[in-house]
Amino acid sequence: MSIRIGIYGYGNLGRGVEAAVRQNKDTELVAVFSRRNPDSVKIATEGVPVVAADSVKDYKDKIDVLIICGGSATDLPVQTPELAKTFNVIDSFDTHANIPTHFANVDAAAKEGGNVGIISVGWDPGMFSLNRLYANAILTDGVDYTFWGKGVSQGHSDAVRRIDGVADARQYTVPVPEALESVRNGENPELTTRQKHTRVCYVVAEEGADKAVIEEQIKTMPNYFSDYDTTVNFITAEEMARDHSGLPHGGLVIRSGKTGLNSEHNHIIEYSLKLDSNPEFTASVLLAYARAAHKLSQEGVSGCKTVFDIPPAYLISLSHEEIISHLL
Amino acid sequence: MSIRIGIYGYGNLGRGVEAAVRQNKDTELVAVFSRRNPDSVKIATEGVPVVAADSVKDYKDKIDVLIICGGSATDLPVQTPELAKTFNVIDSFDTHANIPTHFANVDAAAKEGGNVGIISVGWDPGMFSLNRLYANAILTDGVDYTFWGKGVSQGHSDAVRRIDGVADARQYTVPVPEALESVRNGENPELTTRQKHTRVCYVVAEEGADKAVIEEQIKTMPNYFSDYDTTVNFITAEEMARDHSGLPHGGLVIRSGKTGLNSEHNHIIEYSLKLDSNPEFTASVLLAYARAAHKLSQEGVSGCKTVFDIPPAYLISLSHEEIISHLL
Repeated sequence: MSIRIGIYGYGNLGRGVEAAVRQNKDTELVAVFSRRNPDSVKIATEGVPVVAADSVKDYKDKIDVLIICGGSATDLPVQTPELAKTFNVIDSFDTHANIPTHFANVDAAAKEGGNVGIISVGWDPGMFSLNRLYANAILTDGVDYTFWGKGVSQGHSDAVRRIDGVADARQYTVPVPEALESVRNGENPELTTRQKHTRVCYVVAEEGADKAVIEEQIKTMPNYFSDYDTTVNFITAEEMARDHSGLPHGGLVIRSGKTGLNSEHNHIIEYSLKLDSNPEFTASVLLAYARAAHKLSQEGVSGCKTVFDIPPAYLISLSHEEIISHLL
Repeated sequence: MSIRIGIYGYGNLGRGVEAAVRQNKDTELVAVFSRRNPDSVKIATEGVPVVAADSVKDYKDKIDVLIICGGSATDLPVQTPELAKTFNVIDSFDTHANIPTHFANVDAAAKEGGNVGIISVGWDPGMFSLNRLYANAILTDGVDYTFWGKGVSQGHSDAVRRIDGVADARQYTVPVPEALESVRNGENPELTTRQKHTRVCYVVAEEGADKAVIEEQIKTMPNYFSDYDTTVNFITAEEMARDHSGLPHGGLVIRSGKTGLNSEHNHIIEYSLKLDSNPEFTASVLLAYARAAHKLSQEGVSGCKTVFDIPPAYLISLSHEEIISHLL
């Protein structure tokens, strides 16, 4: 029998989960829950209802795992604990500083409901976290590096869009090639913020706007840009639509560490992602962990988990014999 | 209290485990077991006994995990099941075709003894296997590639050494850059053996040996070289000692996969290792899994496991709070 999936929140991430369910034959989509008027939400899968978010609990016995596709700032801190009382849940909570609190809240709610909640699933946090952990467990004496990009940062794009005279904007985060090369060579450099990443902006200015002023405002914006070398390119709305409509992203996690009686040998472990669609890849990770949540729940487990707690075999639909024969 | 480690077999890998124990403060080395005369074996750690392999069972209550450092061809198929009756054990069994049989043998023995056995630990099988599994679980629609090198293949080096007139030899396996680039670009090429790797040999010829004959014998050797583009370089014994005394290795696991309603987005997941010392890195992985075996055993688990069965958190000496704060 298929794993019955519900999607809670139908933005880019929710649409990504929908596409992922269609690729994974051991899963099926039962319903999409939205805070918008359900009649106004058109989804890609025929025959699957769009249901008002308020009515989600009516689906208690119809859904094995609910994948919550809200934002980390205000949605998930409320939604995940609340929904974990009723469903096995997965989220992509990514506000690092607040993960311990979120974990505790989801843990209490999931245990109360006898459910499994897996939080902070995706690629960072998520696959990058796993690779940091594995690499730290193996190379005890070492240094970690995380680079992001080349990819679109939605937070930074939004920050540019809020500037007066900006009609549209897209911001790419790009690792500095020289920094990356130094890390890969095992030189263990100490890198400042500026030395690790550059920021590249594409901006559509409103008619009559002063481009020099916009550029200056971007480059000096605290937190977002002032600590980086930033390039600003003004383009037309047509160029924006043609060249920058996607949401590519990616990045690298590298650990450089030493072994040997006298620390004489160096090792580089590198994990990298090059993603055409950030939300679709994240959604694919969420669905793999939904599979794990379902298995754990069937075993009688309850409470909050992270990617660190899940045996890898639980993520895949293949049998023990198949993974030993084909993947080990 | 430290995790008490025994090393069974003291070759390159056993020495690597010894070095790894010295780097991991939550572990301590209790004894090294050798089939050689113990008096003839000198180890690097003062105060730790070298004990005859025959007497290993006397250490039943003194060792938490025994790391078995024998070869896959004839040692491990016998040693791991036998020792799993008495100890929690880790091995690096890497004869892919025989893993299911080895698993069954170790599973029966470990259950009989109430112990945990984790087999096929290292980087391939091991970390590469894990990355194949994670990537397959995430990108259901995709293609896997594994490249090895640049690194020393001991089996191929031995094969060259067996040729008449060869005094010493070292063989490096090298990925073909064009193949790697095509895979990284998401072109999903179908690659023959010859298109994926080249082989580079460094050979010290005996005096008076016919180098042209040696080179021809290498290049036409079935299984080992005939399917590859092979380069043979004749060097002096001094050059061999100076430039080729290490055992570097590494490689890459790449999955290229598609997502989206119409498979319109491509993603590349790449995991790569660049290792100065193949045995020391493998040993470091073994020790991390020894930590996991100890925790599982304390929880009352018994039987055979692989890297696919172990929750990542079990590999590291940090607490739940620490990994959530620092690595997630």
